[in-house]
Amino acid sequence: YIKMRLSIIRTATNSFARGNYARISSSDLSFFEKAIGKDYVKTKEIENYTSDWTRQMKGSSECVLLPSSTEETSSIIKYCAEKRIAVVVQGGNTGLVGGATPIHDELILSTGRIKNNFHLEPSSGVLTLDAGFILADADNRLAEHGFMMPLDLGAKGSCQIGGCIAAGAGGIRLLRYGSLHSHLLGCTMVDGKGTILNLGGRLRKDNTSLHTAHLAIGSEGQLGVVTSVTMGVVPRPLSILSAMLAVSSYSDCIRILSLARSKLGEILSSFELIDGETMKCVESHLPLKNVFQGSHDFYLLIETHGSNGDHDAEKLNQFVEEALGMELAVDGVAANSENERAHMWRLREESPIAAAKDGYIYKFDVSLPLEHFYRLTEETRDKLKGRGRVYCYGHLGDGNSHLNVTTDGEDEELKKELSPFVYNWVVSHGGSISAEHGIGQLKRDYRSLGKSASESSLIRSLKGVFDPHSILCPYKMISTQD
Amino acid sequence: YIKMRLSIIRTATNSFARGNYARISSSDLSFFEKAIGKDYVKTKEIENYTSDWTRQMKGSSECVLLPSSTEETSSIIKYCAEKRIAVVVQGGNTGLVGGATPIHDELILSTGRIKNNFHLEPSSGVLTLDAGFILADADNRLAEHGFMMPLDLGAKGSCQIGGCIAAGAGGIRLLRYGSLHSHLLGCTMVDGKGTILNLGGRLRKDNTSLHTAHLAIGSEGQLGVVTSVTMGVVPRPLSILSAMLAVSSYSDCIRILSLARSKLGEILSSFELIDGETMKCVESHLPLKNVFQGSHDFYLLIETHGSNGDHDAEKLNQFVEEALGMELAVDGVAANSENERAHMWRLREESPIAAAKDGYIYKFDVSLPLEHFYRLTEETRDKLKGRGRVYCYGHLGDGNSHLNVTTDGEDEELKKELSPFVYNWVVSHGGSISAEHGIGQLKRDYRSLGKSASESSLIRSLKGVFDPHSILCPYKMISTQD
Repeated sequence: YIKMRLSIIRTATNSFARGNYARISSSDLSFFEKAIGKDYVKTKEIENYTSDWTRQMKGSSECVLLPSSTEETSSIIKYCAEKRIAVVVQGGNTGLVGGATPIHDELILSTGRIKNNFHLEPSSGVLTLDAGFILADADNRLAEHGFMMPLDLGAKGSCQIGGCIAAGAGGIRLLRYGSLHSHLLGCTMVDGKGTILNLGGRLRKDNTSLHTAHLAIGSEGQLGVVTSVTMGVVPRPLSILSAMLAVSSYSDCIRILSLARSKLGEILSSFELIDGETMKCVESHLPLKNVFQGSHDFYLLIETHGSNGDHDAEKLNQFVEEALGMELAVDGVAANSENERAHMWRLREESPIAAAKDGYIYKFDVSLPLEHFYRLTEETRDKLKGRGRVYCYGHLGDGNSHLNVTTDGEDEELKKELSPFVYNWVVSHGGSISAEHGIGQLKRDYRSLGKSASESSLIRSLKGVFDPHSILCPYKMISTQD
Repeated sequence: YIKMRLSIIRTATNSFARGNYARISSSDLSFFEKAIGKDYVKTKEIENYTSDWTRQMKGSSECVLLPSSTEETSSIIKYCAEKRIAVVVQGGNTGLVGGATPIHDELILSTGRIKNNFHLEPSSGVLTLDAGFILADADNRLAEHGFMMPLDLGAKGSCQIGGCIAAGAGGIRLLRYGSLHSHLLGCTMVDGKGTILNLGGRLRKDNTSLHTAHLAIGSEGQLGVVTSVTMGVVPRPLSILSAMLAVSSYSDCIRILSLARSKLGEILSSFELIDGETMKCVESHLPLKNVFQGSHDFYLLIETHGSNGDHDAEKLNQFVEEALGMELAVDGVAANSENERAHMWRLREESPIAAAKDGYIYKFDVSLPLEHFYRLTEETRDKLKGRGRVYCYGHLGDGNSHLNVTTDGEDEELKKELSPFVYNWVVSHGGSISAEHGIGQLKRDYRSLGKSASESSLIRSLKGVFDPHSILCPYKMISTQD
């Protein structure tokens, strides 16, 4: 892990006052030990659970519980609901907003041991797996049968599938395979009363009830603990190709996106942007070279996933030639080997690492309508007037910008100004202040920005249905206390 | 429309007793006339609204209201909630389970005039449109910009997009483009209190709240009136190709599906089955010829949607050759012209018409895990022992079987036996008794089959959040009265 000096921007810390929850007693611990086994009730050496992976967000907890099944999870939650014990649910602990980190002394329920069942139906491509399976491990198992997990993200080596659902994970292939809503067919969730809810099923079409399983996506543990997931998986592509383009204006980037949609059509899987400042930052902080001579204002990384390498190469080459011929791109290269492809992706995937090495860092994960996507970067630069450096990279195809600001040292004034500026700008331009990372504790104070009172009231009512005692993940995305 | 002698299978008609709702008075009518205009409060000649399109399900109603906007819809529902007037919501009235048809004297709220706003963002492919737009009209408007509605179904010339969301429409291209969950980004819904809920938005990635918009899909008007929909649309394919295969066993059909997934990959858009009995029925009742000489046990209709005709043709030919070479298919033809392609689709799309001409008809819309898909047809044939004819056709790629049974005349005994047999068989084999048509009034008595008490309780609680007075679409999918 990279050590980051990360600006944790929480403004109204008062709203994090401890709720009226019970404190854990020795008889509670005895109950848990009986329910799931002594070895799986941890009270010591639990720092890996009480901090997030960046070690910037820290809470404390009396114990970590590691149930191995839906039933054990249910018995724990039922007990906690009766006793009014607050619980925070944790998967692979790879989140970026502290959603899985306790704030006060919440009990930590980790889903890491819930990984007994893994069943693929090869004829339909329907997979049921327990929540604790790690994304990359699940993907490796699918590879043996010619299938692939449709989502892919940086944390794949540690994140768990249950946590992916709860986080509403997006990732780098959303453009091609769609969001988790495209794939989820059903899930098992233990609600805040300990009730086991089997929602949806294994069928691609089923209109016999409300499609409640979809409420689990992006729910951040507020409604229940996801213990099992059923989803459609996709055929593993037989051909993966990448190309990079150098572009001199943002409007040309958007024209190239339209060209890619029509020329690459069904095989277009990623359309990523790295701006010129970010590329300079990568080159100066990392032992990585740009693939182009000289510097340009924008770089696009385009990837295809297909079933026929010859066809895909022909499409990709035609697309690159047309982008150059129409003078939308000033330069273009296609990767000729797996090494070259990996090099292109390192430029994009290590952009956050380079930015983190550039100084004290303020990270944003916003999405915007494409007409406003890059203006946020420009206007943030204008606002800072040299007080900091602004980097923009992200999933342009999805409108998802990872805006980073760095300063030489911690700048208290900037810290106070920056988030309200960015978040208000984003919301007033029809964007989202959290494209894929969620709300958690980090963005809690901004969670109502741009939301109507009726929507806020609706989600509180839904929370009340699933978790009437509000014991799950308090002080975060949905709080019934304020 | 074809006149069908359709078996409407409702067993426990007692459960349809009129609820304790207010009856409509002249002062109510005055309020409605003031709210939306006299011309749009219809009390006469409303048979097109009080019956479903097959004219088999009939209710009555004092009036039909045709609001033109979300705001007018809100003022109507707010009033009805206060007065406890029951309301049934109706789109294009193309449903197949009577979900939009009143049972007693529910007021009918038609969304047909809510069609002012239609906005496409061409760079991102995000479309916002009012609920009353007809699917085919919306698709035609998108064609001008190179986009396409991702869903396609028989009723596209009449069904409205709001109704498609409420019905959770599936259709013939789900295999390629995914369900509505893959496309929906947001919607505006007027809940049972008249509150306007703006859920989700125009962004492909937004993790700032619960993903509540997805609850609208398949909700059958139980939670609210969908008045506006925001969804991702897809690039219009530049090449559409079809082929048919004749196959001698169901297990070979499944092997061919796996072959299609790997050989056609990203361009496979439909994988439809017509069984031998259905093809004979088509040939004997309609002026339509099979594309193959002689008769076979199974026929598959395979379609591709792609961006490059040469590539697609090469893939499709390779696939057909391999299916024949591996002796999975006994015969195969690819369509060489638009006429030949249309002919293949007529065989599939007119299968229900042929079955309806075959006698008194009992229609089913079930989905099943693929290993059980065709056994239902075989076991239904065994059970009937010649008392009726059994036809199976459907979307094999989605596990969705449209099983039809016909008899020469109405058979009261069979009527009593058939639905319980089919539905119990389906549920005990992990299937759904309603793959895409929904529950409505037709399948209401079977809606709890295979559902857990906790799920039923959950959906009643959710209904209570959105529609606390239970005025929306009573006596159907979710009833708070029983």
